[in-house]
Amino acid sequence: MDRVAVIGASMTPFGQREEWILDLLAEAGQAAMVDAGIEGADVQHLYVSNMASGEFEGQTGIMNAVAQDLNCLPAYAARIDQTSSSGGAGVYQAWQSVASGASDLTLLVGGEKMTHRTTAESTDVIASLTHPIEYAHGVTLPSFAGLTARKYLEQYDAPRESLAEVAVKNHKNGVDNPNAQFRKEVEVETVMESPIIADPLRLYDFCPVTDGSAALVFCPESLAREYTDDYVVVSGVAGATDTHVVHDRLDPTTMGGVVESGEAAFGMAGLDPDDVDIAELHDMFTILEFLQFEDLGFAAKGEGWQAVTEGRTEKDGEIPINTSGGLKSKGHPLGASGVAQVHEVYEQLLGEAGPRQLADDPEVGLACNVGGFGNCVITTILERA
Amino acid sequence: MDRVAVIGASMTPFGQREEWILDLLAEAGQAAMVDAGIEGADVQHLYVSNMASGEFEGQTGIMNAVAQDLNCLPAYAARIDQTSSSGGAGVYQAWQSVASGASDLTLLVGGEKMTHRTTAESTDVIASLTHPIEYAHGVTLPSFAGLTARKYLEQYDAPRESLAEVAVKNHKNGVDNPNAQFRKEVEVETVMESPIIADPLRLYDFCPVTDGSAALVFCPESLAREYTDDYVVVSGVAGATDTHVVHDRLDPTTMGGVVESGEAAFGMAGLDPDDVDIAELHDMFTILEFLQFEDLGFAAKGEGWQAVTEGRTEKDGEIPINTSGGLKSKGHPLGASGVAQVHEVYEQLLGEAGPRQLADDPEVGLACNVGGFGNCVITTILERA
Repeated sequence: MDRVAVIGASMTPFGQREEWILDLLAEAGQAAMVDAGIEGADVQHLYVSNMASGEFEGQTGIMNAVAQDLNCLPAYAARIDQTSSSGGAGVYQAWQSVASGASDLTLLVGGEKMTHRTTAESTDVIASLTHPIEYAHGVTLPSFAGLTARKYLEQYDAPRESLAEVAVKNHKNGVDNPNAQFRKEVEVETVMESPIIADPLRLYDFCPVTDGSAALVFCPESLAREYTDDYVVVSGVAGATDTHVVHDRLDPTTMGGVVESGEAAFGMAGLDPDDVDIAELHDMFTILEFLQFEDLGFAAKGEGWQAVTEGRTEKDGEIPINTSGGLKSKGHPLGASGVAQVHEVYEQLLGEAGPRQLADDPEVGLACNVGGFGNCVITTILERA
Repeated sequence: MDRVAVIGASMTPFGQREEWILDLLAEAGQAAMVDAGIEGADVQHLYVSNMASGEFEGQTGIMNAVAQDLNCLPAYAARIDQTSSSGGAGVYQAWQSVASGASDLTLLVGGEKMTHRTTAESTDVIASLTHPIEYAHGVTLPSFAGLTARKYLEQYDAPRESLAEVAVKNHKNGVDNPNAQFRKEVEVETVMESPIIADPLRLYDFCPVTDGSAALVFCPESLAREYTDDYVVVSGVAGATDTHVVHDRLDPTTMGGVVESGEAAFGMAGLDPDDVDIAELHDMFTILEFLQFEDLGFAAKGEGWQAVTEGRTEKDGEIPINTSGGLKSKGHPLGASGVAQVHEVYEQLLGEAGPRQLADDPEVGLACNVGGFGNCVITTILERA
């Protein structure tokens, strides 16, 4: 079967941006089209990954607006929402659009504009994805993270500092990312002494509120060389859900959606975790990096924290995790994050990651994008062509 | 190529419902699964078509909630938004999920809960799909409809009563639909004497505000008979966009998205408008039925109104339009409408439409779902297997 290629990628600077959502989406979309060497008129399908432009900015119909702004008319255009994993879901939908034969050229643009709202307002929108019964009891995503972190540390005898080291590593990586929101290193002590948000997690265990956008261009591999010699292929992609009601889960330290989507993506690619050279994991909270690392099969359950403390996930380690800086330092504009993860893998596989470039020519990369508290998960595996 | 089959369909009663969005979606989803003879565990992909559960009810993440409510875990689940054509876009995405091989069983559920909000609140959410410059000047979808209706009547020398006859026909059809919001006939005089909303359009030229849901089950045709002998196939489906800024269009009496998606869907199906035995058109405003009738090729431009006044689109006419009652009498819960259109075609093609059933065994049906003021359009063609 003809595989699906990614022939262009881009991301805007992440952080506090003055532009509104439509301009952010157009900025990333235009840059990805330039990277792929295409024009708006070439686009047959346009997907816009975005959770809440209506709630955040009072603007809906954004797929149609972007289609006109990027001169893609009369391309089919739809908005894909899967909360924080909207970007990953967009990758899966873009893959389906090409694999089904419906589109020979698909543009995916993910983005969110959030910093103009107060943290309370943003939290209120994001928390509305939880089950109303849990929300009514005051549980939000950060509190799920705190509860899970406590259980993980106790169950697997992991030191609190191991969580801090996730933040330290990802901030260090982010220094080399010109598009990252925070380009500064932090120390373990900085994390450990920052204010408690959801015990045992502290301020520096959390990703920031961010504006930004990222974009990708897809086509059948059989057509890719008509546009460029620098492309990667999606060799595996799958999505899975876990319970909407988080307290229905038997073991909060395992994310079922990560396990299921990971197994399906590896099966589709015909690869094992050992084959992966680089991965972007969804470190919205530091604890999530441990869970995904284990649930994807990179370590046994309860041993993921050791990979971090032993430096095995550093840029020069056996499996570098979040070379982009991750959500932790790069930022987390909801609909953009899953797209930006693939952008990082794309650049690393093509040797275009500049100061972040891994030395040993990675050939297989993985992105894991998590919505809610593992409610929806997309795992994507990419390979050099 | 293996075609995509629709093996189950359902809709809830449309109207003013006490249930909230998640219960409406579950109600339709469960009924469609029963119709198809499947269980939640069989579902591999779940699509939820919905424009604005966040704005209308403060609940996001609904794709994940529905996945759990219908016992579909760990199925991949995503929300599809294309404003009023979210349902049609969901049909297209469901088709892609099966045609790409990503899913062998896809459940699509579309719905919206709106009547608990005031008309002003609903209008504010819906109008947010328009371009901010147009909205700032006070233009909403009803005013675009009024402006277009005036131009149409003048340009094609059509009587104002011809628009009223769309409402009369669709209300008459709706009487036989147990799920329709309004099951009462209206007279031309009732329409002509109702309050002016957007001159020359009056109250009875508009669809109501509605709660409701509808659902469909898709699988490869090669697997359909494992579930049922009563199924239809999607022989053509396509989407297209027109300008976000409506005043950028050269001729408001032609909807480019209808023309483009219609031509693509007919091309895919290898059919012509003459082959269509029944169609559901998006009569959010009466004028839209004329425009789609013409732009899909059922009549020459400017002659669609005559088909209505001459009775050719009645149930016993040469091409019955909106046998379900249309959005006009059945109601228009945004994310549900495109799904409910296909539900009507499905029932008619299978001879299951009860008192609405057409006498002459229709074999080919079409659904045209319009988002915004023709901003996004999906055309779907279905055939008896």
